[in-house]
This record gives sequence, C-alpha cells and structure tokens, in this order.
Amino acid sequence: MDVQSYMHGVGRAARAASRELARADTAAKNGALEAMAAAIERDRARLLAANAEDVAEAKRKGLEPALVDRLGLTEKGVASMAQGLREIAQLPDPIGEISDMAYRPSGIQVGRMRVPLGVIGIIYEARPNVTADAAGLCLKSGNAAILRGGSEAIRCNQAIAACVREGLEAAGLPEAAVQVIETTDRAAVGELITMRDYVDVIVPRGGKGLIERISAESRIPVIKHLDGVCHVYIDDRADLDKAIRIADNAKTQRYGTCNTMETLLVHVTIASRALPLLAQIYREKGVELRGCERARAIVDIMKPATEEDWYAEYLAPILAVRVVDDLDAAIEHITVYGSQHTDAIVTEDYTRARRFLREVDSSSVMVNASTRFADGFEYGLGAEIGISTDKLHARGPVGLDGLTSLKYIVLGDGQIRT
Amino acid sequence: MDVQSYMHGVGRAARAASRELARADTAAKNGALEAMAAAIERDRARLLAANAEDVAEAKRKGLEPALVDRLGLTEKGVASMAQGLREIAQLPDPIGEISDMAYRPSGIQVGRMRVPLGVIGIIYEARPNVTADAAGLCLKSGNAAILRGGSEAIRCNQAIAACVREGLEAAGLPEAAVQVIETTDRAAVGELITMRDYVDVIVPRGGKGLIERISAESRIPVIKHLDGVCHVYIDDRADLDKAIRIADNAKTQRYGTCNTMETLLVHVTIASRALPLLAQIYREKGVELRGCERARAIVDIMKPATEEDWYAEYLAPILAVRVVDDLDAAIEHITVYGSQHTDAIVTEDYTRARRFLREVDSSSVMVNASTRFADGFEYGLGAEIGISTDKLHARGPVGLDGLTSLKYIVLGDGQIRT
Repeated sequence: MDVQSYMHGVGRAARAASRELARADTAAKNGALEAMAAAIERDRARLLAANAEDVAEAKRKGLEPALVDRLGLTEKGVASMAQGLREIAQLPDPIGEISDMAYRPSGIQVGRMRVPLGVIGIIYEARPNVTADAAGLCLKSGNAAILRGGSEAIRCNQAIAACVREGLEAAGLPEAAVQVIETTDRAAVGELITMRDYVDVIVPRGGKGLIERISAESRIPVIKHLDGVCHVYIDDRADLDKAIRIADNAKTQRYGTCNTMETLLVHVTIASRALPLLAQIYREKGVELRGCERARAIVDIMKPATEEDWYAEYLAPILAVRVVDDLDAAIEHITVYGSQHTDAIVTEDYTRARRFLREVDSSSVMVNASTRFADGFEYGLGAEIGISTDKLHARGPVGLDGLTSLKYIVLGDGQIRT
Repeated sequence: MDVQSYMHGVGRAARAASRELARADTAAKNGALEAMAAAIERDRARLLAANAEDVAEAKRKGLEPALVDRLGLTEKGVASMAQGLREIAQLPDPIGEISDMAYRPSGIQVGRMRVPLGVIGIIYEARPNVTADAAGLCLKSGNAAILRGGSEAIRCNQAIAACVREGLEAAGLPEAAVQVIETTDRAAVGELITMRDYVDVIVPRGGKGLIERISAESRIPVIKHLDGVCHVYIDDRADLDKAIRIADNAKTQRYGTCNTMETLLVHVTIASRALPLLAQIYREKGVELRGCERARAIVDIMKPATEEDWYAEYLAPILAVRVVDDLDAAIEHITVYGSQHTDAIVTEDYTRARRFLREVDSSSVMVNASTRFADGFEYGLGAEIGISTDKLHARGPVGLDGLTSLKYIVLGDGQIRT
C-alpha cells in the first residue's frame, strides 16, 4: 500500500475515534490508562528485547552515540513509563469543565466548556518513552493521537503500541484513539503534517533541526519549542547569597535541558563581588566561561565572548557572561538575544522586579528563582507534552489544558434576540 | 519603492512599536483611543468626502452593488466609529492581569500574566469602519497593528488612519503602533502573510473567498471565521412556544449574519405540531423552505432539499428543514453538515440538554436560546474582532482576551531546584 493511502486511512480512523473519545467518560479514560500501565509492566521483557534489537541495529548502522544513548530503555525506564500513565490517570479530567457561567442582561447565561482539540499528531525522535507519555496525555485530554516515532525506535515503539491498544480495548475505547505509525518511510511525516482534514495540531518533539523542518513545512498549526537561551540577571540590589545560589543552580543542576541558563547578566556595580565567587564555583564544576570585556577584567579565566555566544544554546558546561549597566540594558540584551523561553532576575528591588516581570517577553519570567523551575511538573501541571515558545494557544509548559480548547455554552429559557 | 521593501519596513516598525505598546500603561492607551474618537468626529466631513470619492470610483469601475453598499459610510457610521473607540477605552485593560498565583511544594509561587501577542495583521474588505475598530482593539490589547483594507476603500481608510495617528501621537505612543497600508498593490497582502519575523497573527475579515485564500497561503497563524451553518434542533420534549419563538428569531431576525440558523432539525414526534406553525410564520416573512421528504409530507409548500442544502450557508431568506428520529440523529446531522459555529437545542429534558452541550462540537452550543446570541457584545466581551471557528487559541467570539497570550510568572525567595 502506498504511504499516502496508508496515512489517510490512519487520519480517517483518528478523526472517527476522536469523536468517540470526546464523549468518553473519565472512568473509561482512566481505566484505559491503568490497563496500559499494567500491560507495559507485564510485557517488560518483551519491550526490553525489542529495544535491544533497535539499539543493536542503530549501532550496526553507525548512528551517533548520543542518539543510541537516548534510544536505550532500561528496566527503570519501563517502570517509569507505567508510573507516568498512572499519574496521568490520577490527574483531574479537564474535559467538560465549565467555567465563568454568568447571566447577561438578555437573560441568557453564558460560560465556557473545556473540550478536546480533536486529533493530535506527534512527531518525535529516539526516546521510546514518548510513545507512552504522549498517548497518555492525548487520551486523558480526549484527543485522538497519531504518533510517529523515530525509525531507529520502531520495534520498541510497536511493542509499546500493542500495550496501548490493549489498554484502550480493555476500557471499551476505540483502538484508533492512539495509532503508532507502522512505516518508517519518511513520506509519512510529509503526509501527517499536511492532512488538514484529519489532524488539528502537530507537536514535534526532538532536536532543533526536526522542529524547524516540521514548522516550516506543516500546513497544520504546530505547538513547538525551539531554543532555550535562558538568562539570569543579577541586579545590583540582589541579595548576593540568593544570586550565587540561583546562578549556580540555573547553570549546573543539569546542562542539557532547555531551561538551563546559557547567559549570565550582571549589573556593573555588583559584578566585582558576584563574579569572582561564581567563577570559583563554575571552575570547580568544570564550566567554561566566555565573557565580555568588562567581565574578563574582573575574572581573568574567561575566554572572550563573541556575538554568537550571546545567541548560543550550549546545552553544555559553557556559560556566556556579560556585565550590563542597568536593568534596561539587561532587558535589552534579553530582548535582542534571548529565545523567549525562561529568564530570571535576582533583586530585592520591588519596582525593578515588577518591571522585569512585565517587560521581559518570555514564556516564563522569574524573580529570585532558578530558571530550572520552568517545567510542567514544577508548575503543578502534573505532566507536560512540551514547552511552547510560541504565543498563540499555549505558552510555556504545556499540560493537559494545552491540548484542549474552550467552547462557549449558552443556557436560556426561550430567550430571543431583539 | 518596491512592495517588499515597503512591507518589510512596515513590519520592522510594527515590531519595534509593539515592544513600546506592550509596556504602555492603561491611561496612555485609553487617552489615545479618546483622542482618535475626537479626531474622527472633528474630521467627519473629510471622512465622508473621502468615502464619497471611493464610492464614486467603485461605481465608475462597475463593482458589484453589494460591495458598493458595504463601502458606503454615513454620518451615523462616523459617529458609531467614534463611539466604538470610546467603548473600547471603557473596557478593562487585559494586559498585565495576573491569575492563578499559587504556591508550589518547592516554595515558588507560580501564576500567569496576560500579555499582548505582538503584531497583528488584519486584512479586510470594503467596510471602512473596520479600520477604526481593529485599530482600537489591537491598541487596547497592547498589540501593534498592520491594517490592509480593500483597495476600493483606500481614500477613506487613509483619512481614518490620519485620525488614528493623531490619537497615538497625542498620547505619546509610537505612530507605527497602527499602520494602514498605503499601497493598493495586491502583492502587499502576499508579503504581510509571510513576514514571520514581523507579524505574529493574521486576522482576515471578509467573504469566504478572501478567508480561504489567506488561510491557504499564510505562513503565519490565522484567527479565522469561515462558514456559519447554524442549526436549531427542536426536540420532542421541547416547550412548543419556546421552540417556535427561537426557530423564528434564529432565522428571521437578520438573514445575512453568520449566527443565523440555516437548517432547522425537528424531532419526528413534534414535527406535525411544530412545522405547520413555523411554516406559516416563515411564509408571512417570505422565507423559502427546502425540506426533506418527511418535512414536505407535513408542510406541502416546501421545495425538496438536496444534499447541498444541508451544507448551505444561505445568508438569505431560505431555510433547510429536516425531520430527524431522535437526538442522536440530530447530533449526527450537525456533525456531518455543520460548520462548528453555533448550534442550539430546544428541549425541557435535562439529560438531552446536557448531552447536546457536551457532544456538539461547535464554538457556541446553546440550550433554549436563539443562535443569534453568538456575538461578542451579547456574551459580554465588550467588542469583537471576529468569531473564530478554529479550535486553537481562540474559539467563538474573539474579544480583547483573544488578542493576548498568557506567560508564566514565578516569584521566589532564592529557591533552587534540587
């Protein structure tokens, strides 16, 4: 069968299933999630064996070690997939929530009801756990899902898909509620992102290259997360202890995450006190520093920063450091070079904190907290499908609500318009 | 100057202005709106003269009478433009609103702040009042606006633009906060909908042809409104008086609006009582009826309805009528033929009302109220830029909030992630 017919068949089935899912009650959805978790635990050995074959083939093909690394699934990984599904079952069901009901002068009562988006296409790379996570989030939010994983993970993804289908069946939900694409043909992605009749939103998860390509080519709206070029600005009215703690944590708690600080901005007045303390911490942890001239005059171990450094998302133990004259200069730097992901100010000054919150146009803006908190779990969303750096629809960590829409509902007693 | 350079210049200026506007305080924005209203009232004669020239040229060119009609501006039209701007000034400022602040176990306090989208491109046809309306809504919501009106309205739109600029200047806001495109070259639209660096969202307002073309070609997200194929379903447990009143009002209060009923669905058990009463009303008002076989067996004046009639948005005194077996058949009809705009049930049955609300996937779903209520003013939004039949971002009537986004804000006291 050709890829186009296959994908259109998948799309039609997803659209039909989405209508059933939108009406599914909370107990059925939670029952399916629990049954999926149980099937995954029961099939642990089979999942690990399928994954071992994927890994072996990836090595044989000479795929890069970082990718092979992300592909690997452990016993703990299987357990946490099942646990993740159970946690999604525990979350409140967003669908059908009614809010803001109010009477209008005409006598009608108007409010909004939370409803699913419909069909969500998710395109992702190596990590097989995304298959279970994404299936769970889409299901709980009443959406049908079409999942397209990396070809290198096809065996493990199909083994997970079997568990997902079993869970759906056990709960009496349509099998097509979650479909994992069975072909590794790249043309399937091209179909998925252009089937406007069958797919309502595309969520790409993976490296920047993948996300840029999908965004450029998709004819369907995309919820996407590009760079995380995150900043911490240490104001001269900062509490120095908090500043050191936050600038340390934001950079070094994990290097490879999108909410890791990539550029440190320091007010000129506090730079001579803050930078030597920080430089020592970073040196001990093996973080390479690249600074502007003024920063290098204070801490001589820094390499000079180039214009590219201000734009860089290192995802590595490297930090750009810039001394700035004031809050305005800090905000200007963030506006010009940042990626509107997460930026923090450290200050005890009320007015500056307030200005930073209002004027920095990023999906998360923080006062006296580490950028590492920008995360669906830390924010209390329960789970996240990704972090959106867009402004339309969803911004910042996207949980179940981000996969829903609000329709208006009107309750009347025979009212007509005059 | 070529159109591309001109449009990119407009885009750059809008982007720069959007940053200033995002920080503008409520008093400045309201001051600008009031000053615009005053300038429009003062320049009434000039606006009417410019409009008269547009109308004369449109007639000279032989444009269709409906378009020439929409183009015409009256003294009352000028007054209501000014009034509309003053009403927008009276609305609460959505920007900077903070909601849902809650402490997390880590000690950080997380919530959301309402922020502008950035730059909004609005593409519209004849009606010159859209220039003032759209400028006002974008300004109040902190967004820079690029307005591209129809070439047939260019003189009047430029005269309004001068008033808008004067208002911005009086309030100390950047002139580029609202730019009305000065060229009638069609290539300007092509540039506007592809300048992804400068424009965040496109709002097309006009006929279906315009909106479909823009949606298909835009590389920027579109907030759009396509058809309004609205239904009223009269259930067999309806109060007959309410049913007659609503089915009359939903069709005949205005024929040309998107929330007008286009298809009436009637439960088979109540059809023999409801349809003759309704047929008489419609006949008196000159509404042509096109029915299914069962409807025609009850009311013999009906023409037979074809498959196309179920899909039709007549925007005229024509109504399709179908007798259905039950609620399921009504919902199925709406799902298959509807446009997800506005649909209503008339019933006194609690469970059926609840099912209709949950299962009908339209931007407005109503019980015992006329579809004509689907409107930003009736819903209490204060004003609307349009009605969205999409699900992403904004659904249903789009007011000021629909032109904003929510960013996360985090307030801490030195918290770090462990």
